[in-house]
Amino acid sequence: MVYLTRRERFNAAHRLFKKEWSDEKNFEVFGKCSNPNWHGHNYTLFVTIKGEPNPETGFVINIKQLSKIVKEKVIEKIDHKNLNIDVDFMHAKIPTSENIAIAIWNEIEPDIKNLNADLHCVKVIETENNSVEYYGN
Amino acid sequence: MVYLTRRERFNAAHRLFKKEWSDEKNFEVFGKCSNPNWHGHNYTLFVTIKGEPNPETGFVINIKQLSKIVKEKVIEKIDHKNLNIDVDFMHAKIPTSENIAIAIWNEIEPDIKNLNADLHCVKVIETENNSVEYYGN
Amino acid sequence: MVYLTRRERFNAAHRLFKKEWSDEKNFEVFGKCSNPNWHGHNYTLFVTIKGEPNPETGFVINIKQLSKIVKEKVIEKIDHKNLNIDVDFMHAKIPTSENIAIAIWNEIEPDIKNLNADLHCVKVIETENNSVEYYGN
Amino acid sequence: MVYLTRRERFNAAHRLFKKEWSDEKNFEVFGKCSNPNWHGHNYTLFVTIKGEPNPETGFVINIKQLSKIVKEKVIEKIDHKNLNIDVDFMHAKIPTSENIAIAIWNEIEPDIKNLNADLHCVKVIETENNSVEYYGN
Amino acid sequence: MVYLTRRERFNAAHRLFKKEWSDEKNFEVFGKCSNPNWHGHNYTLFVTIKGEPNPETGFVINIKQLSKIVKEKVIEKIDHKNLNIDVDFMHAKIPTSENIAIAIWNEIEPDIKNLNADLHCVKVIETENNSVEYYGN
Amino acid sequence: MVYLTRRERFNAAHRLFKKEWSDEKNFEVFGKCSNPNWHGHNYTLFVTIKGEPNPETGFVINIKQLSKIVKEKVIEKIDHKNLNIDVDFMHAKIPTSENIAIAIWNEIEPDIKNLNADLHCVKVIETENNSVEYYGN
Repeated sequence: MVYLTRRERFNAAHRLFKKEWSDEKNFEVFGKCSNPNWHGHNYTLFVTIKGEPNPETGFVINIKQLSKIVKEKVIEKIDHKNLNIDVDFMHAKIPTSENIAIAIWNEIEPDIKNLNADLHCVKVIETENNSVEYYGN
Repeated sequence: MVYLTRRERFNAAHRLFKKEWSDEKNFEVFGKCSNPNWHGHNYTLFVTIKGEPNPETGFVINIKQLSKIVKEKVIEKIDHKNLNIDVDFMHAKIPTSENIAIAIWNEIEPDIKNLNADLHCVKVIETENNSVEYYGN
Repeated sequence: MVYLTRRERFNAAHRLFKKEWSDEKNFEVFGKCSNPNWHGHNYTLFVTIKGEPNPETGFVINIKQLSKIVKEKVIEKIDHKNLNIDVDFMHAKIPTSENIAIAIWNEIEPDIKNLNADLHCVKVIETENNSVEYYGN
Repeated sequence: MVYLTRRERFNAAHRLFKKEWSDEKNFEVFGKCSNPNWHGHNYTLFVTIKGEPNPETGFVINIKQLSKIVKEKVIEKIDHKNLNIDVDFMHAKIPTSENIAIAIWNEIEPDIKNLNADLHCVKVIETENNSVEYYGN
Repeated sequence: MVYLTRRERFNAAHRLFKKEWSDEKNFEVFGKCSNPNWHGHNYTLFVTIKGEPNPETGFVINIKQLSKIVKEKVIEKIDHKNLNIDVDFMHAKIPTSENIAIAIWNEIEPDIKNLNADLHCVKVIETENNSVEYYGN
Repeated sequence: MVYLTRRERFNAAHRLFKKEWSDEKNFEVFGKCSNPNWHGHNYTLFVTIKGEPNPETGFVINIKQLSKIVKEKVIEKIDHKNLNIDVDFMHAKIPTSENIAIAIWNEIEPDIKNLNADLHCVKVIETENNSVEYYGN
């Protein structure tokens, strides 16, 4: 079993808030991340799949196929976008890194299964100090 | 003469557009950076000053003083904010990296002069691929 | 289950040696790390906790709470200090990265439990070439 | 149990191709990585071993011993070399990152066992976007 | 005047040698970089241009235009290639970083002039330890 | 004219203080950097020389010669040492980054002149946030 990781990047705006809460309550919970006029990040995404290398090619899967899935299912929808407004798979979710990672997992897992590989980990780095990893449930 | 550089960081949303132009024209010029619902970045800022080290302390200036100026005059106003809406010193400017760098220079230069040092360079890194430097005019 | 990681940094002096041993014996085992007048590092610390995201907030825990624990229990005691002399939780321990990671785990684990999360990993990076990870015993 | 990681680096040329296939077929499968005149990379290698810290020294193993094994068994044979032609342990293998990681594992595992430690992971980073990890079978 | 920098990357094989010299003489001068079967690198390229920001757009030039020039004139010819054999603009040159930087400058300067900007610097990073900068003559 | 840069690294302990001052006065000026029991850093050093590439070799100078000078004149004396106590060329100097950069310049400049090249810049990075550059006087 070998683990293969592809890095992709996206730049997006977001706001952490619950619309049922007042701005004060949102600020209390989410701090400056609840700024009503949005802020944003350069997100780094690491997607790891696992499988046996194909003895013909030496590849678990061709990493270009992995990149293509991540770009079509995630990056094109999320890059240079507003995570609260523009992204279908984030609809009605608070765009924390935790929720972004889980949503990306769900977006890409079926396509990775179709390649006869297993999705192992989705890692989302929001800043050099803060990141999350999701390994499925 | 020694050059002293302090790194600070801020995360902000922005949109590149001219309000006099249609969305189509804005997209033509600014591409996906003109997304109407904003996007954002982790900006890295490098501020360089120059001067002679003080023979008493070995410091050109105490880098904490430089950090304090940059934090008070720039980071507190710009971090977790929307560059088009929330930031006084970006008012009525298109928030390209070029304009951000020039505006930051103008914000901090007087305070650095007060420390008997010369501002040398403001460098703004928008992504790992794109950056600008401004050395004054 | 989502894994959430916070990076913190500290700069410290240390010396690897056993006081029962001669300088020659210490040099034989610890090499230049046993220099009697100390040397030092910029340490990078990654603390990872795991838990279920709270459906209300989308957070496993608020990463500011994690940062606060690490800063109060570790960084304030260890940053700009001598690991052999100044740090209570390193008392009588040889300050290898292994021992630093274990000691930091023990310092912060109770407070993380109080947040209803589980400490998963303490990673200590001593140089770009050398690092350790501890996952508890 | 503590995990100890050493980074080493090597710069090498390679070509992904099967000699039984035509250039066209190789290009179809391996893309520009099948360029007949080779291309190359700065590879980064992370080797992780695990074990209990020795109470005498605070070391799982002395990281210099780990570095020595990796340098003698891997780096000296592979650095500034052609992976398809010059490297005995890559003979008759397509030099994908997957195959490189597995081959390096096999090269160093016996020597690490002799140090009373367990090899845990060999990570090979080919570019900032592509990497693999192998944990043994 | 603002300086705008674009990063691009390419992975290439090369060999440092003079064909008039014996392998021994080449090894004496170029060391392991003269390995007859080639080796390779992940090269990082930083291209810096300078100019006045356009008051209409806030851009010195649209960085996508800069990226397009560098990709078409350099990256497409050099990425996943052998610098000694495959690259027209390196023909009959020893592919040191110095010569690569000068050759890239000459390749892209006319196109950058056509954008009403001035090429300022071509920086080539061969490894994390070795780099060169060329500012024209 | 081409600029050639070599990176080297050293890990050292230091304390910023004037022995004529009280601990209180030292703390007032140098803050936690004046901790009496020392602290330390992983220093990164970039040495840049300039010259014309030799048409025979394509090298300004062989970067191994540059590395050798920096290692012999600087790294061997300073790595895993205490900058206040152990390093001859820092004797009686407050080991700020400014003073370190100037002292390193003076240590290596004669040897670089002997290679028929000009020393251009000594850059010392103390932390990811703080650095200095010295270009001679």
